[in-house]
Amino acid sequence: MLQNDLLLRACKREPVERTPVWFMRQAGRYLPEYRAVRKKVDFLTLCKTPDLAAEVTIQPVDLVGVDAAIIFSDILVIPEAMGMKLFVEEGKGGPRFETSIRTLADIQSLKIPDPNKELKFVMDALRVTREGLRGRVPLIGFSGAPWTLMAYMVEGKGSKDFVHAKDMIYSRPKEAHLLLQKLSDAVADYLCAQIDAGAHVAQIFDTWGGILAQDEFEEFSLRYIAQIVGRVKAKNVPVIIFCKGCGHSLEKIAAIGADVVGLDWTQDIGQARSLVGNSVALQGNLDPVALFSSPDSIRVLVKRILKKYGHGSGHVFNLGHGILPTTPVEHVKAFVNAVKEFSVEYHQ
Amino acid sequence: MLQNDLLLRACKREPVERTPVWFMRQAGRYLPEYRAVRKKVDFLTLCKTPDLAAEVTIQPVDLVGVDAAIIFSDILVIPEAMGMKLFVEEGKGGPRFETSIRTLADIQSLKIPDPNKELKFVMDALRVTREGLRGRVPLIGFSGAPWTLMAYMVEGKGSKDFVHAKDMIYSRPKEAHLLLQKLSDAVADYLCAQIDAGAHVAQIFDTWGGILAQDEFEEFSLRYIAQIVGRVKAKNVPVIIFCKGCGHSLEKIAAIGADVVGLDWTQDIGQARSLVGNSVALQGNLDPVALFSSPDSIRVLVKRILKKYGHGSGHVFNLGHGILPTTPVEHVKAFVNAVKEFSVEYHQ
Repeated sequence: MLQNDLLLRACKREPVERTPVWFMRQAGRYLPEYRAVRKKVDFLTLCKTPDLAAEVTIQPVDLVGVDAAIIFSDILVIPEAMGMKLFVEEGKGGPRFETSIRTLADIQSLKIPDPNKELKFVMDALRVTREGLRGRVPLIGFSGAPWTLMAYMVEGKGSKDFVHAKDMIYSRPKEAHLLLQKLSDAVADYLCAQIDAGAHVAQIFDTWGGILAQDEFEEFSLRYIAQIVGRVKAKNVPVIIFCKGCGHSLEKIAAIGADVVGLDWTQDIGQARSLVGNSVALQGNLDPVALFSSPDSIRVLVKRILKKYGHGSGHVFNLGHGILPTTPVEHVKAFVNAVKEFSVEYHQ
Repeated sequence: MLQNDLLLRACKREPVERTPVWFMRQAGRYLPEYRAVRKKVDFLTLCKTPDLAAEVTIQPVDLVGVDAAIIFSDILVIPEAMGMKLFVEEGKGGPRFETSIRTLADIQSLKIPDPNKELKFVMDALRVTREGLRGRVPLIGFSGAPWTLMAYMVEGKGSKDFVHAKDMIYSRPKEAHLLLQKLSDAVADYLCAQIDAGAHVAQIFDTWGGILAQDEFEEFSLRYIAQIVGRVKAKNVPVIIFCKGCGHSLEKIAAIGADVVGLDWTQDIGQARSLVGNSVALQGNLDPVALFSSPDSIRVLVKRILKKYGHGSGHVFNLGHGILPTTPVEHVKAFVNAVKEFSVEYHQ
């Protein structure tokens, strides 16, 4: 049914002709065609208008030739669906909530959303996108990890240090666990619904796992990601886990049952492969900032990562974090083309 | 001569009665007494007025009971002494330079400063501090690592992604190496002069080593730190290396000849000790954000780190990064006292 199922085969470590490539935030501001859509609507309206969300989701497939689409959305639609009023004003300090979650009563007031009601716009966007893709490439659904969502919810906004979220973990761990359990239930429901609505793959983003000490990462983040993976695996699609800044716990992350582990650019993908063996596929991991250097430099860096991973399937090429909004489009194309060209020899 | 030489003994892994404790940015805004001095002068004037720099350097020894003083200064006085005009306006986006270093001509225009001329104010501050301390605790001198200094100099200011500095590394590595070599020479001269002026210990801070991929960290950061350590070791005082976010390269950092390796809070000090064996002492590594939680939580976390390190010398207790300006002083005292109280049993 899919004309290009390289991603699905690579996730399952099945033979591929070349390494598939997609990248985080590929539907985004670096594309003039995305900015044209955003001139008409604000960020959250774009997320909540299925036809437009589908349009920008498909753009990078057409424009830069990636091997997968990832549904255009935001990780904070979950807390919004749980009852928190969300404001996203790009360039004005990032997303923020009207209130923050600090007390037991705040936690208890949060509801577990029905993804087919409160988050129906995401499911509709997935269905419209599937139709628009006409089987060209797989479609990825995603969610933030519970700890990452909790960090924003307790702080009320983005933060460098997440003092309040960490204080809940350190001083009131029972309340933190209560909140994380609610979030895990909500995220698992949400990802399962996305798969029912047409997602071929599910990715969980733990953007802020790396600000925790290792013991807290295991207790307050990875434990809940594992719960979610357990539930989502029943849907029989590949699951990708990306915990930024958590290279210290690679083997533990690889052991929770996901099919693919994403690596940020500070991890060495060759070392990572030798640590995890054939237990999981690996996704990554070019430094997003490298896309500002010359196309020649980009090709050298792509070759280095391919060589480090080495021969055989199980590699999904990606950036080590989301693409930056000011990245030159021509460099992005050079990156995608380099993966397509230079990866062939590793699959012969 | 020193009444309390716990730090020096711990750096050399010699027996101690208890684990010494000091912390990064301990002379800083969390102390009302520091803020009182800063009401009178701006940040750079404070750095450049030896009597005042000595006063704030000694404050945490008196007020929170740390086992070492670290000279009050800023890592960016080196680029300033090399010819770059520096502005530090706290709370207004951090330090910035009038111009940035982007071209070969820019790099060639930088001079290697004579630390006893252009940086004489630091040497004077060390001498006044030594006098004021009257042998109570050791005095630490410090410098930024070449890559961290380069990152600020090429960018012209602080940054999240350091796009321009990384572009120089990726696209024009020869120019990057030329700049880094100049910086290494300047930093080595500077640290040697600090030791001559009275510093008992030298620490090198690589605040931005962790934003590099591992290969670039080794080639563009660690290589130059190793050069500096080679020169400073001739002065026969302990050298501490702190590379934030570089846990992936712990064994390589431990192998360059420094006496102590600093750990950020995301590293597990028990695992780190088992990796480096008896080759170096370890410094760290409580999460600075943990100091916002209750004193009871702080004590639990201090005990956990002491237990992870285990019995025997070679541990210098510290935070895993600089203390945050809004940290409650009472919590800081609880932290220092907890180390003093609970570490005794590990040295019997």
